[in-house]
Amino acid sequence: MLDLLNQHRTIRKYTEQPIDNELLNKLLTTACRASNTGNMQAYSVVVTTDPDIKQQLAPAHFNQPMIKQAPVVLTFCADYNLFSKWCEQRQAEPGYDNFQSFMATAIDTLLAAQTFCIAAESVGLGICYLGTTTYNAQEIIAALKLPKLVVPITTITVGYPADMPEQTDRLPLEAVVHRETYTDFTPADINRIYAEKENSDFYKQFVAENNKETLAQVFTDIRYTKKNNEFFSDKFMDALKIQGFLK
Amino acid sequence: MLDLLNQHRTIRKYTEQPIDNELLNKLLTTACRASNTGNMQAYSVVVTTDPDIKQQLAPAHFNQPMIKQAPVVLTFCADYNLFSKWCEQRQAEPGYDNFQSFMATAIDTLLAAQTFCIAAESVGLGICYLGTTTYNAQEIIAALKLPKLVVPITTITVGYPADMPEQTDRLPLEAVVHRETYTDFTPADINRIYAEKENSDFYKQFVAENNKETLAQVFTDIRYTKKNNEFFSDKFMDALKIQGFLK
Repeated sequence: MLDLLNQHRTIRKYTEQPIDNELLNKLLTTACRASNTGNMQAYSVVVTTDPDIKQQLAPAHFNQPMIKQAPVVLTFCADYNLFSKWCEQRQAEPGYDNFQSFMATAIDTLLAAQTFCIAAESVGLGICYLGTTTYNAQEIIAALKLPKLVVPITTITVGYPADMPEQTDRLPLEAVVHRETYTDFTPADINRIYAEKENSDFYKQFVAENNKETLAQVFTDIRYTKKNNEFFSDKFMDALKIQGFLK
Repeated sequence: MLDLLNQHRTIRKYTEQPIDNELLNKLLTTACRASNTGNMQAYSVVVTTDPDIKQQLAPAHFNQPMIKQAPVVLTFCADYNLFSKWCEQRQAEPGYDNFQSFMATAIDTLLAAQTFCIAAESVGLGICYLGTTTYNAQEIIAALKLPKLVVPITTITVGYPADMPEQTDRLPLEAVVHRETYTDFTPADINRIYAEKENSDFYKQFVAENNKETLAQVFTDIRYTKKNNEFFSDKFMDALKIQGFLK
């Protein structure tokens, strides 16, 4: 089991083999066993296989080819729609149109999503998370007809792997784990933590190809820029407001 | 593997057996294999075992007994502190003090957290998620000395199970899964989806014990009230601001 988790790779290319619907339902049922707040199950998953709807989703994901190529696209959503409608139908006044409720449902959504991914990998499927979901939530809301109190949090493309890429590197554990309380990093800590990554031929070439001086500059100037992050911050906050989560 | 995931239960009572440090590091290393945005690994985990620091954390979690009783308390944090400091040290201007970056790191944090939980369960440990983390983030920030750009997202108590409770129920899959696009629920759908839950002796007793007319009212009037949700919404938004994620 640890072996399976330790062997995780993001799979971006899939064979043409479709995913059996019964298997997919079994994996989704397993995903729902994940822990969730108060057992409210305030999340939803939109399963998209139709080429026309995938086509509508594609621009929201900056036309990354996995959307069209994967047999199944899963959009995992924070969702207080069903729960709130149930409350209204049972003489109860729902109070879930606020940021704290959004955080609770977003957390539950992600625990279910990751459980789905691990379940899928255990039966030989490959997955890819698309971080574009929170960039272009509004376009996804339109394409998938998401009602109020439903906001897409992450998208997973799923299929049988057409290749098995190398695993990506990870920082040493001291980059992530703190003992008892948080110990902030000294310049020497930072040099040590990033040394292996920065000295690898792979990243040296990556920096050169991007015409930058340091690996960090590839992130700040090209991949995840301040300007884009701020633009998409406003856009996602607007999506929360429009969907009714910022009362 | 699916069996393990399908057998998940939240464990709130632990034996006195400590968790071997080597095993814990192995599980945390596995957690770091989870997918993450741009391989930035922008998250952190504070491992707390010291009774004094657990004592300081306890009120933030409304003194739920698991905090003191579990051998290990893990606070999983959205964290752009290390990455931003690395950027600054490498002549790169970080732009991660905004809401979109917070969402990206919160997502990555939760994928790592759930991977940890599944890894832990696979070696016989039991876990409990504490949703109080986003209620009282500020108190946790103080207790764990979290710097700017670090915000606790979820807390997991871990230990060897002292009992094995019954599994909790789940709604039928149609409550969660939508095909192609979202299909909103009719009153008849809602009656059907909640029928089994509402008709169970367990929940009938639960409603009676809480002196309510409907199960939904137990949620809206007692467990997750509008008033509390709104109070803790403002408080968590303030925590994001103070920690520097709302530029």
